[in-house]
Amino acid sequence: MTSHHDITANAADTVQADHTLRGFIGYVMKRCFNSVQADLARELEALDLRMLTFSALIVVVDNAGLRQSELAQALSVERPNLVVIVDELEKRGLIKRTQVPTDRRAYALTPTAAGKELYHTALKVVQDHEAKILAGLTDEQVRTLRDALKSIQKSADG
Amino acid sequence: MTSHHDITANAADTVQADHTLRGFIGYVMKRCFNSVQADLARELEALDLRMLTFSALIVVVDNAGLRQSELAQALSVERPNLVVIVDELEKRGLIKRTQVPTDRRAYALTPTAAGKELYHTALKVVQDHEAKILAGLTDEQVRTLRDALKSIQKSADG
Repeated sequence: MTSHHDITANAADTVQADHTLRGFIGYVMKRCFNSVQADLARELEALDLRMLTFSALIVVVDNAGLRQSELAQALSVERPNLVVIVDELEKRGLIKRTQVPTDRRAYALTPTAAGKELYHTALKVVQDHEAKILAGLTDEQVRTLRDALKSIQKSADG
Repeated sequence: MTSHHDITANAADTVQADHTLRGFIGYVMKRCFNSVQADLARELEALDLRMLTFSALIVVVDNAGLRQSELAQALSVERPNLVVIVDELEKRGLIKRTQVPTDRRAYALTPTAAGKELYHTALKVVQDHEAKILAGLTDEQVRTLRDALKSIQKSADG
């Protein structure tokens, strides 16, 4: 039988209103990721970066010369959304977009010196953030977490 | 030193383009959650539910009579977004919205018989989905995963 009960305006009770959903790992993961994303967004804001512009910058610096289509694939981002991100990074002088000589329809992306500098600064910010959110866990727990997430993703994709 | 290397159009190489990002648990969690969400969305589509309308229905059935503001708080959803969700569930005859006698500005939400029926059907779908995505893990690994996600969320919120 399902438990039906009125909840009051009391905050402690309200927190329990989603008790059925909290039984699902998918929901716990969503709530956790929302908190991580909001917290990281605050840190990246200081560098005028969003999660996706940060991710795109990292991939372009690590893979100088990659094509826009490859960046879209690497980040699993839809093409129109990616164009907005690339435009923003180019406008800020962090990456350059050049036509691929062998394929006029393709654009290759390369980082500028400013892009490479921001890469290192931003990586440090995200590494510190990562250390903060993992502070309560042992290395062994982090390994299990990482393996579990990979296993779940594989099952969901399969 | 950062490794810079050109990537080709080869899919296996492209997958590695985000290797720096894959070092971050936050990124691994995001990729995992995206896959889980997409997979669950396909399952819920058969019931004409989205993640958020599903979540809202569950909380309203579990907490008959709760106020809209309490539902928004329980799901950590912004008020305007919640109104859209509640409108949709009401229009489909799954929940009812009634004025609270003691507070004219507040609305209490209660499930209809159809809402309660869909609650049970949808819960079964999500339980089966959850079993599928966790199939590769032991109970012990799932416990560690759940505890780790809670610890991370606490650190991110703190």
